[in-house]
Amino acid sequence: MKKLINSSENVVCEAIAGMATAHPHLLRAHLDPNYLWRIDAPKPGRVALVSGGGSGHEPMHGGFVGPGMLSAACPGEIFTSPTPDQIFEATRAVSSEAGALHIVKNYAGDVMNFEMAGDLARMAGIRTLNVVIDDDVAVKDSLYTQGRRGMGTTIFAEKICGAGAARGYDLKRLADLCRRVNSNGRSAGLALTSCVTPAKGTPTFDLGPEDVEMGIGIHGEPGRRRVPFAPADELVEMLALSIIEDPPYSRRLREWDERLDTWTDVEITNAVFAAGDRVIAMVNGMGGTPIIELYIVYRQFAMLCERKGLSIARCLVGTYITSLEMQGVSITLLRADDEMLELWDAPVCTPALRWGM
Amino acid sequence: MKKLINSSENVVCEAIAGMATAHPHLLRAHLDPNYLWRIDAPKPGRVALVSGGGSGHEPMHGGFVGPGMLSAACPGEIFTSPTPDQIFEATRAVSSEAGALHIVKNYAGDVMNFEMAGDLARMAGIRTLNVVIDDDVAVKDSLYTQGRRGMGTTIFAEKICGAGAARGYDLKRLADLCRRVNSNGRSAGLALTSCVTPAKGTPTFDLGPEDVEMGIGIHGEPGRRRVPFAPADELVEMLALSIIEDPPYSRRLREWDERLDTWTDVEITNAVFAAGDRVIAMVNGMGGTPIIELYIVYRQFAMLCERKGLSIARCLVGTYITSLEMQGVSITLLRADDEMLELWDAPVCTPALRWGM
Repeated sequence: MKKLINSSENVVCEAIAGMATAHPHLLRAHLDPNYLWRIDAPKPGRVALVSGGGSGHEPMHGGFVGPGMLSAACPGEIFTSPTPDQIFEATRAVSSEAGALHIVKNYAGDVMNFEMAGDLARMAGIRTLNVVIDDDVAVKDSLYTQGRRGMGTTIFAEKICGAGAARGYDLKRLADLCRRVNSNGRSAGLALTSCVTPAKGTPTFDLGPEDVEMGIGIHGEPGRRRVPFAPADELVEMLALSIIEDPPYSRRLREWDERLDTWTDVEITNAVFAAGDRVIAMVNGMGGTPIIELYIVYRQFAMLCERKGLSIARCLVGTYITSLEMQGVSITLLRADDEMLELWDAPVCTPALRWGM
Repeated sequence: MKKLINSSENVVCEAIAGMATAHPHLLRAHLDPNYLWRIDAPKPGRVALVSGGGSGHEPMHGGFVGPGMLSAACPGEIFTSPTPDQIFEATRAVSSEAGALHIVKNYAGDVMNFEMAGDLARMAGIRTLNVVIDDDVAVKDSLYTQGRRGMGTTIFAEKICGAGAARGYDLKRLADLCRRVNSNGRSAGLALTSCVTPAKGTPTFDLGPEDVEMGIGIHGEPGRRRVPFAPADELVEMLALSIIEDPPYSRRLREWDERLDTWTDVEITNAVFAAGDRVIAMVNGMGGTPIIELYIVYRQFAMLCERKGLSIARCLVGTYITSLEMQGVSITLLRADDEMLELWDAPVCTPALRWGM
């Protein structure tokens, strides 16, 4: 294993120290517990947006801290959930009286620890709501997850809700918006190679020289099936149709009910795409994929969307949610309404996503 | 070899078609000959900025086409220079009466073909000047190069001169600015792994499991030496000191002399860094390097600059000039004066570099 690190124990703290050094006008790093937070937080009258999850998926989430997006990000160790106290400390550091929205990818550890952090925050008098992102169509129930996993829609939710928070949306309205983004987003990914975590030092999973893992999870969890390696257009068609033709999906979810002051189970049915929909599209490299390949993927993805009558209103092509140096790609579609598009276009200034500022 | 491509022959044309589909408000793709050009070019009274080089280094150069940066980019096949007629056609498509500046990385094929393209352009009545970037301190004379190779300073030159062009600098002033940026920029890179070109299908060079190639070229050309794998801080120190302590460097260069109407040899001596200098710093992933590692590298690089009395005024940390999926990193420093910093901060809107718009 050759990695540009000093020791596997210090990867996360050295990287977030490096981020704070590189972007001193945007964010600061707090060490032990580890979190990155905006230099201008908390902002009176504005809901704080806090996300987090295992490290190794950069630029998510630390790369999205800044005006117009996240207030704080809590990086766990590589592929390991952040702890409840870590999330709570970050939440307390950035929250005003308007409270905090937690955006949580659906992995068992993340969901549990963000719930506990929400409890800690409420005990400290900070209003918080958690919204879980579960947009990956690949599998229902997985190695680390009940229900679908959280993937690329997380980026869309953080951008759109970040703009809503900057405009002064209250906590309830922001949580509703975040749920709506999640309900209208779908992702799927594939891997050509495994990644290697610094602690383990060997590939996370085995994949033959002619095999592709369709529906890969962002920690290398198994997907739907292995298929023989094929031209990009064929692989992208499999991925794209799996999200465009995804049937309605119902899920049970624990949500904090402010009225009852308790966690309650709610049933949510997610919508699907239809001809005439406007969408925001993302082609995302998994960390080790050359950019030239991402545009070959986008070309085919855009053609398939057009063939299905979907109109791509905005797009991202790049590296946004990764698995260390894994070679592969994920694609995401969000059915976007006017409000989402307007919030998408609002200015944002973070290390990894920036426009209008 | 597993790559997200359809055939090795169509990689470049499909990728630039994908770029034009993804960024229709910024650029168009011309196929056969291949180039990407701004939708609003030519701009009357403004010098056009044209660059190019082999593909496989994305986002350079196509990712830097747009307001505030390049007018056009000419991608050759993977690791292959663009042809003279290709560069000429792109230049003609984007040039107004103010002429065109060609920014050329110092590789023998690029230099020769841009010179021939300059001749073709002048025969067609288009004023052009070529500036060669040769900032890589690793080796003098290399596999494909006489003198030093062109590397990360290319990005700085394209951004800063792009802002100058947008402000109406004339051709002579812009070429002088570009030369000044080149004279004040230094880069060095290292590789942990080789890349694989689609046409060859096997690694470009062999590198043992415990070896690091210090001073790697962006096509996998040999560097200064192989060193045993070591902690990131040690490797970064070797790289950083090689550029910070680089002695003055003289080179002979062919430049178009408008007065004599001919190519003439000129002698240029490049400057070096000293305590008290303000610099723009870049940590650049070679394509397959996880972002978390780039920030570990930046942390150490920034500490070394501080120790040497260099003040980092601006920085970039990300993936800007790559060798397909190669794992490794390059670092670049530019000694920046007030004019360069002001032009650096000017708005830019391209697929890969964007702020203020």
